[in-house]
Amino acid sequence: MRAMAKAPVLTPQAEDFPRWYQDLINKAELADNGPVRGTMVIRPYGYGLWERMQQEMDVRIKDAGAQNAYFPLFIPQSYLTREAQHVEGFAPELAVVTHGGGKELEEPVVVRPTSETIVNEYFSKWVQSYRDLPLLINQWANVVRWEMRPRVFLRTSEFLWQEGHTAHATYEDARDYAARIHRDVYADFMINVLGIDVVLGRKTAKERFAGAINTLTLEGMMGDGKALQMGTSHELGTNFAKAFNTQYLSRDGKQELVWQTSWGVSTRMVGGLIMSHGDDNGLRVPPRLAAVQIVVMAIKGDEAVTKVRELGDRLKAAGLRVQVDDRVDTPFGRRAVDWELKGVPVRIEIGPRDLEAGTAMLARRIPGGKEPVSVEQLAELLPAVLEEDQALLLRQSRERRASRTSDVTSLAEAAEAANAGGWARIPWSELGPEGEAELAQQAVSVRCLVAEDGSVPDSDDAPGTVAIVARSY
Amino acid sequence: MRAMAKAPVLTPQAEDFPRWYQDLINKAELADNGPVRGTMVIRPYGYGLWERMQQEMDVRIKDAGAQNAYFPLFIPQSYLTREAQHVEGFAPELAVVTHGGGKELEEPVVVRPTSETIVNEYFSKWVQSYRDLPLLINQWANVVRWEMRPRVFLRTSEFLWQEGHTAHATYEDARDYAARIHRDVYADFMINVLGIDVVLGRKTAKERFAGAINTLTLEGMMGDGKALQMGTSHELGTNFAKAFNTQYLSRDGKQELVWQTSWGVSTRMVGGLIMSHGDDNGLRVPPRLAAVQIVVMAIKGDEAVTKVRELGDRLKAAGLRVQVDDRVDTPFGRRAVDWELKGVPVRIEIGPRDLEAGTAMLARRIPGGKEPVSVEQLAELLPAVLEEDQALLLRQSRERRASRTSDVTSLAEAAEAANAGGWARIPWSELGPEGEAELAQQAVSVRCLVAEDGSVPDSDDAPGTVAIVARSY
Repeated sequence: MRAMAKAPVLTPQAEDFPRWYQDLINKAELADNGPVRGTMVIRPYGYGLWERMQQEMDVRIKDAGAQNAYFPLFIPQSYLTREAQHVEGFAPELAVVTHGGGKELEEPVVVRPTSETIVNEYFSKWVQSYRDLPLLINQWANVVRWEMRPRVFLRTSEFLWQEGHTAHATYEDARDYAARIHRDVYADFMINVLGIDVVLGRKTAKERFAGAINTLTLEGMMGDGKALQMGTSHELGTNFAKAFNTQYLSRDGKQELVWQTSWGVSTRMVGGLIMSHGDDNGLRVPPRLAAVQIVVMAIKGDEAVTKVRELGDRLKAAGLRVQVDDRVDTPFGRRAVDWELKGVPVRIEIGPRDLEAGTAMLARRIPGGKEPVSVEQLAELLPAVLEEDQALLLRQSRERRASRTSDVTSLAEAAEAANAGGWARIPWSELGPEGEAELAQQAVSVRCLVAEDGSVPDSDDAPGTVAIVARSY
Repeated sequence: MRAMAKAPVLTPQAEDFPRWYQDLINKAELADNGPVRGTMVIRPYGYGLWERMQQEMDVRIKDAGAQNAYFPLFIPQSYLTREAQHVEGFAPELAVVTHGGGKELEEPVVVRPTSETIVNEYFSKWVQSYRDLPLLINQWANVVRWEMRPRVFLRTSEFLWQEGHTAHATYEDARDYAARIHRDVYADFMINVLGIDVVLGRKTAKERFAGAINTLTLEGMMGDGKALQMGTSHELGTNFAKAFNTQYLSRDGKQELVWQTSWGVSTRMVGGLIMSHGDDNGLRVPPRLAAVQIVVMAIKGDEAVTKVRELGDRLKAAGLRVQVDDRVDTPFGRRAVDWELKGVPVRIEIGPRDLEAGTAMLARRIPGGKEPVSVEQLAELLPAVLEEDQALLLRQSRERRASRTSDVTSLAEAAEAANAGGWARIPWSELGPEGEAELAQQAVSVRCLVAEDGSVPDSDDAPGTVAIVARSY
C-alpha cells in the first residue's frame, strides 16, 4: 500500500546529482523554466519557501536598523559607467531597454543588475550632514543578470533578492556594519533557520564584488561537496561616493565622502536549501523555515476526515504551522510520496484502525521512520520533535563539512580534494593569487579566506590566513 | 515655540490641489521622481505605507484561498499578440528589451505590463483535469507601462502591485470569485483599513480591461472631488484560455476551456490615501494602516527622554505601534511639524512641566486639537482614541462623497457637476455609450455603473442602472 518501496521518483543523488536537483524541482513543483532563457517561474510551494525566508530575514534586517524602500528597475546606462570596476563587472550581463511607449529611447536604460549606482544618485541628495548618517536602506526586488549557463534558483537571468545599501561617516562604522549584517543577519539566519553550517570568510581580491574594497561571504557545502556562495556583504569604501559625489558636512564643518556598504541574498538560497538537505526521497525543509511544519493526513474514511480536521485545528491553536490533507479520493500512497518530496517535516497519518485505538502514525521526514503515538499527546510532543529535527539538519550539515574538508599544503592536493568533491584548506601564503589563477583553470576557486581560529581575517595577508578551496555552483 | 502658526509648509489644497499633492510627497519624504521618466523612488516612509498595505491585503488574499507565486519579468513579444484586444490595449505602453548579455536578442522581450499571457502559458501546462481547479494564484511584483504624463504613485512607468490570476471550471465559479475578491478583499481593505468610502461598480465596455468580459472596480472620491480607480477585478471569460489553449478534462471526460479572472491593486493606492485623507498640514494615516500609530515625543531635557523611552516600551507592550522621538537636539517645533506632515495619528508630547504633573499632551492628528492627559491612563485610553479616529476618516470620506455627488438627468448636467469638482449620478439609459463618448471629449468619464440600490449590476443594461460620472486621475 505504501509507495515508498516502489521505483525511485527521483534520479538518485549518487547517480547524477544535477539531474536529481532538476528532478526534485520538477516533482516537488518548486519551479519551472521561464520562456525567456534563464528566467524561472516560482511555483507556490517554492515561493512559499522564499516567502518564509523573506519574513525571517526582514525581521533581522529591521533589527539591524535598516528601513525598506524601493528604487526603480530602470537605470540610465550612463550611471553604470561612473564607477569603472563596477561597469567592467556588470556590462557583459546587462539587459538593455531601447524602446518604450512605441518609440526608440534617447538614452537606452538598463534593467538593474544591482542598485549601487541609482541608490547613490539619491543618497547624494538625501545626505547633507553627519546628522543624516548612518543612512541604512534595504530593498526587496527583482534584478536581471543575463546568464549563459542558467540553472533554476542557482543562476537565473532574473532573480529575487534583498539588497541593502548604507552610508556611514567613517571607514570603521561602515566596516562594522558590513560585519554586523554578515554575522547577525545572514549567518544567524542561515545557521539557525536554514540549518546550514555556513563558513564565514573574506573573498580574495579576484572574487570581490565589482566596486568593493572588501567582500564578506557565507559559503555552504552542498550534498555533492561543492560550495555555494549563499550571501555576501561588501565594504564599498568611498568608490561609489566619489563617482556620485555623495558627501556630508562633518561636525567640523568639512565636506567628507561617505563610507558605504551593500549586501544581498537571493532566491539562490532556495537552491542551497535543496542541495544541503535534500535526499533521494526529496526535499527536507527545516522546521523553523517550513510554512507547513506538519501535515495531518486522513488515510481513508469519513471518520478519519473529521478527525484530521479537528486535530489540525487543535495543533494550529497550539501555534504550529499545520496543513490538513483530507483528500481521501486520492490514493494515500501518492499523497504520502508527494509530502515526502515536498519535505514537510512531520506527517500525522490517521486511518480507521487508528481511530479505534486513539493513536496516529507519526512519520518524521528528517531522521526518517515512523511510530504510533497517542493522539492526545501530539500537541505536547510535536514542538520538541520539530526542534530535534531542526538541530539534526544542522548537525548533518556540520558533519558533512567536517568529513569532506581536508587540510592540505600544496596546490596539487587542493585541486585533487576539490575535484574529488570536497573542500580543501590550504595556507593562503602557500597559494596566493598565482595559485588561485592556476586553480581557476581547473574550475576550482578560492571560496574564502578564514583565520586559523575560524574567524574572518581583517586583511588578505594577515598571518595564518587559510584559503578554502572548492568547486562551486 | 510651536511652529503650527507659521507660514504653511504646503501649498494649500484650495489654492492648487496638484501642487499640494506634490509638496506633500516631497516634504513628508514619501517619494522622489526617478531618473528615467515616469519612474519613482519610494522612500522609507512612503514604502512603509505600501508595506502595511501589502500585509493587510496578503492576509485577505490568502483567506480567499489564493497562493503566492512568481512569474518572470520578461515576456516574449509573441505572447502579447495572442489575445487581440489585450495587445491592442497594451502595445502603446510597452518597454522592450532588445539586447541581453551584450548581444541583440533573436526575439525582443517585453517587460511585463501585466501577466495574463505568461501566466496562461503555465496554467495550460499545470491544469489537466477538473481536480486541478480552481487554480488560485497571486503575485506581488513590479510592472512597467510607459507613461506620457506621469504623476508619482498615481501614474508611473513602473509601479508595484499584486496581480491575481485564477482558473475555474465554470463561468459561474469565475464570476463569483471575481466578485469575492472585489468585495471581501478589496472593498473590505479599502473601507475598513484605508478608511476610504469606495463605490463598488461595474465598468462600461469602453473602460473594461483589455481582454476582459467584465471589469469590477472600486472608485474613491479624492479631496478635490475627482475620482480615483483604486482597484479592479476582471472576469476574463475564456479569452485567454482560447489564446493559450488552457483546457481541462471535465468529470464527463470532455476537454473544456477554463474560465478565468484577474485582479490587481497597486502603489496607486498610496496616492489615493494621500488625496483622500490629506489636509493642509500634511497626510493623515488611518490608525489601522499606520506603521507608526503613536509617536512619543520628548520636548526637551534628559528626564523627558528617559520618560518617553519608558512610556514607549509600555505602549508597545500594550500592542500599539509606537515610535519614540527623543531627538531633543532638534527643535521641538520642527519635529512636531514633521510628524504632522507624515500624518502619524497620535502624538504624546512630554516636557519638563508634564513630568512634575504626571501628565502628557495628547495631540490628535485626525480630528486635530490637543489636550493634557494623565500618563497613567494612556495605555488604556489610546486604543479607543485610535478606533475613533479610524471611524472619523471613513465618516469624512462618506460625507464628502454624499455632499459632492448630485443626481442628474441630462448629459449637460452630468458634465457640469463633474467639471465643478464632483460626481454625478445619471441613469445609464439616458447616457449610453454615445453619451459616454461625448463626455470623454470634456475629459469626463463614466467611472462605473451601479444598481439603484447601490449594488453591482449583473450586466450593462439591467433596468435602473445608474452611471457615476466624474473627472478622474
